[in-house]
Amino acid sequence: MSLKTLLLRNLIRHSKITSFAPIFIQRQSYNKNERHYWTSSRNTAVALLASVVIGSAVKDQENVNKKGDVEAGEKRSDLPTFTAEEVSKHDSKKSFWVIYKHGVYDVTSFLPSHPGGEQIFNAGGLSIEPFWNVYGMHKTKEIFELLESYRIGNLHDDDVVDHSDDEFWAKEPYRDKRLIIKTAKPFNAEIPPKLQVEHFNTPNELFYVRQHMPVPDINENEHKLTVTIVGKTTKVKEFTLKDLRKFKPVSVNAALMCAGNRRSEMNKVKPVKGLSWTTGAISNAEWSGVLLRDVLLHCGLDTENIDDKHVILTGADTDATGTQFSTSLPLRDALDTVLLATHMNGAPLPPDHGRPLRAVAPGAPAVRSVKWLQSITISTEESSSHWHQRDYRSFNPSTTWETADFPTAPPVYSLPVTSAICDPEDGETVTVEDGHIEVRGYAYSGGGARVLRVDVSADGGASWRAARLRQHAAPPARHFAWTLWSARLPLAGAPAQVEIWVKATDSNFNTQPEKFNDIWNIRGILSNAYHKIKVNLKY
Amino acid sequence: MSLKTLLLRNLIRHSKITSFAPIFIQRQSYNKNERHYWTSSRNTAVALLASVVIGSAVKDQENVNKKGDVEAGEKRSDLPTFTAEEVSKHDSKKSFWVIYKHGVYDVTSFLPSHPGGEQIFNAGGLSIEPFWNVYGMHKTKEIFELLESYRIGNLHDDDVVDHSDDEFWAKEPYRDKRLIIKTAKPFNAEIPPKLQVEHFNTPNELFYVRQHMPVPDINENEHKLTVTIVGKTTKVKEFTLKDLRKFKPVSVNAALMCAGNRRSEMNKVKPVKGLSWTTGAISNAEWSGVLLRDVLLHCGLDTENIDDKHVILTGADTDATGTQFSTSLPLRDALDTVLLATHMNGAPLPPDHGRPLRAVAPGAPAVRSVKWLQSITISTEESSSHWHQRDYRSFNPSTTWETADFPTAPPVYSLPVTSAICDPEDGETVTVEDGHIEVRGYAYSGGGARVLRVDVSADGGASWRAARLRQHAAPPARHFAWTLWSARLPLAGAPAQVEIWVKATDSNFNTQPEKFNDIWNIRGILSNAYHKIKVNLKY
Repeated sequence: MSLKTLLLRNLIRHSKITSFAPIFIQRQSYNKNERHYWTSSRNTAVALLASVVIGSAVKDQENVNKKGDVEAGEKRSDLPTFTAEEVSKHDSKKSFWVIYKHGVYDVTSFLPSHPGGEQIFNAGGLSIEPFWNVYGMHKTKEIFELLESYRIGNLHDDDVVDHSDDEFWAKEPYRDKRLIIKTAKPFNAEIPPKLQVEHFNTPNELFYVRQHMPVPDINENEHKLTVTIVGKTTKVKEFTLKDLRKFKPVSVNAALMCAGNRRSEMNKVKPVKGLSWTTGAISNAEWSGVLLRDVLLHCGLDTENIDDKHVILTGADTDATGTQFSTSLPLRDALDTVLLATHMNGAPLPPDHGRPLRAVAPGAPAVRSVKWLQSITISTEESSSHWHQRDYRSFNPSTTWETADFPTAPPVYSLPVTSAICDPEDGETVTVEDGHIEVRGYAYSGGGARVLRVDVSADGGASWRAARLRQHAAPPARHFAWTLWSARLPLAGAPAQVEIWVKATDSNFNTQPEKFNDIWNIRGILSNAYHKIKVNLKY
Repeated sequence: MSLKTLLLRNLIRHSKITSFAPIFIQRQSYNKNERHYWTSSRNTAVALLASVVIGSAVKDQENVNKKGDVEAGEKRSDLPTFTAEEVSKHDSKKSFWVIYKHGVYDVTSFLPSHPGGEQIFNAGGLSIEPFWNVYGMHKTKEIFELLESYRIGNLHDDDVVDHSDDEFWAKEPYRDKRLIIKTAKPFNAEIPPKLQVEHFNTPNELFYVRQHMPVPDINENEHKLTVTIVGKTTKVKEFTLKDLRKFKPVSVNAALMCAGNRRSEMNKVKPVKGLSWTTGAISNAEWSGVLLRDVLLHCGLDTENIDDKHVILTGADTDATGTQFSTSLPLRDALDTVLLATHMNGAPLPPDHGRPLRAVAPGAPAVRSVKWLQSITISTEESSSHWHQRDYRSFNPSTTWETADFPTAPPVYSLPVTSAICDPEDGETVTVEDGHIEVRGYAYSGGGARVLRVDVSADGGASWRAARLRQHAAPPARHFAWTLWSARLPLAGAPAQVEIWVKATDSNFNTQPEKFNDIWNIRGILSNAYHKIKVNLKY
């Protein structure tokens, strides 16, 4: 069996195809040394996987290296050679091998601690490159070093394939050059801090972007939302965007924040896994659309006994195996708050923010506001997706990747109170005027809580100044927007440098912890300790 | 004008009589050297004020003292003597004198910083004793010392009155001897920590008690609840308990916690004002009655535009001036949650807990769960009462009694996540078994948040053990009960003493701050830092 056939077989075998949005994986063309790819018959705009077979084009390396001075995947003179067919046999929990460029790796012992859980089984006996091209977060120095520690051999030159990822990412939209890119594929980018506090509603082109996969390119005239209410007699209805426009139009002013916002600060305590967000993974907008509640009532939802039910939201974005992004929320929370949004700050959603339709789950971590929304399912089960089951869950500081029990860990459906200083930035030089400096930032709390007070200190907490607040008019308990704040801080004496601290208090009177140590967790989420920056002073 | 006439005139003039529950103050008997008192014509069971004129019975003191070695109110040889009539003229913000036993005090400069605000004006030119007999929290060494610092003279012997408080407190109910009394009048008592964690629903007789005034003795067959909806055409309806029983019966399992619970720990950072609660000002019960929402809908409440409205709740308990206890909640919060309860753990409410009718506002500080409920008013205004306007508000650590601006400070309508260790208690000796000790306690979060995790540390936060949780089945966002927890803590080595820390995380992923410093506030409320105890170990 050739490598190409094997790869195809594996892709089909491991695809997590759901009954709500089936994707038939179809080989469109295949020739050695030709570009070939598979696409979804249902959603032709999404290029699932691209690879160029250039086995014969791989340069012979004259100087093959030994362990210790090789780049990941380089040929090594001290190890045996395996064919792709040999490697492909090691595809079980008992013996699990993978390929990266010229390298062959026995990662059997690593399986239980893979942060992405069972996703790894898609790559059994195969090259991990097509997967890592989708899950770009793997491409760090640390992970390549970890990979090399499992190295057992070289792949036969004839079987080496160049997994170019050009096609897979071909449809990415244009992005504003002011965004600070964290990873290019998938596209993840922060809004610069000073721009963050410039507008109460973040301009659409500056709204931070958090993608898990390539951006799907959807024809909005053909887009359909499928609503399924699982029960004794399961009810299914389909809606075009035109159908949805018949429901009562509603708007909500809400911030969306990634659960990993400010992860880089927690990472300083002890390394965590995840995108190294600073304070820019939050933005605020006026979202418009219709209420999930209205659509579900129209579909015949029984509003009694909703406490044991979940709303599973599935997007049109897919990974290399054709699996669509999916997550869920408790039905009771969602009925109170979730919008099916088509517009953002009065304009149609940009492609990066879910065009033509997304969920907006105010007060919840942004991952629950599923973009490119394709299906909604009401079920007694939570979403079974990798993203729901193996990520965005809460652990205490003593839980390790080895001891983490994802199925029993609480999913993150809300966000704790947080705040950040955006202007000045850490390390900046600021001019002192009349013994004062001006400081600006944001504060936010999830679950509908309103920020009641933002306190700023320039003396390590010995004294606190309450900031001026700029807020949306919504009442507490239904408050989903962020708060912008500013404070004129007095400075004692004429120091050359000052450390500024900020903390917020919300309408439940919760405050932030001072340090990250006791909220540290393996995924670096919910990173809401005081924000502390140092600035240099000029007189 | 005699002292007695003056006192009466003042009582009437300063009574904060509301239009919803008018109290006519009526002199029932008056004779020199006779016991005399005033009662409410509307609620004859409530003795408002008792005083025995025993001016002539005051013993002449042969050894009069000087400043520095006197008890508060003792006669001093170094100061002039004033008659009651002279003192009574100093009854304005420009010159404000008061009497305590033999002492005369000019407290004009103290007026702006009186924690009880304008209540103090009731005592202008008069003895403060009848008031302090109601507001017993004044009777501390510190406050008597503060009072003496304003001393300007002695009261003429003929005018000295013994303000015995016997009558005022005559109707207090029987209390369980196991309660730990903080103040006897008004009655404030904690439940002992070990009993706290013995039962998920606290037995009624062990439920902590927090009174502001004497307990009213109400005939439940005559008790009426007046509901007023203020508007263009104000609607008023009266309900007997029998009327209320026609609404749909509902129950809620909810903890009630005083906003001042754990104040004694905050007090160690820097002194605060208020009852010195340890961890015992919280208990849990199953409350039964009817929904406030149902009663208000029956009264014709317009459920649109509820965001600018408040529910003012007024009890039958009154202070020395006849003012009834009153506070309010935002209508939106109250509509979702508030119960009009007649039963507690299946039994009629005990007198200490509001017999025959109380509000239960789950998720809010217990002060909003008004006992002996007599009237409900829906208004665009918050309650104007002293308890609402001058207490239970949130300030930052740098706010002092001098700078506190009560009208703009946010009222406390919810409670932050907290936890406590109840068994063992601080300072106790515990037997180590198999290198472990067993620790038990409670955790709670307001606003409907559920506690998701309780972490316990025996090594100063270097490692945390997640405790086993005992919880009510209610979902997050509607979770009002407390959580009982237990943990088997491993001890490294064989130390003679260990410090145990506990912290909880709620369903909004808020956690407790480690220290009290940055949440310190003048009233010592919302005191939710980690609970830390030291125990001695026996092997």
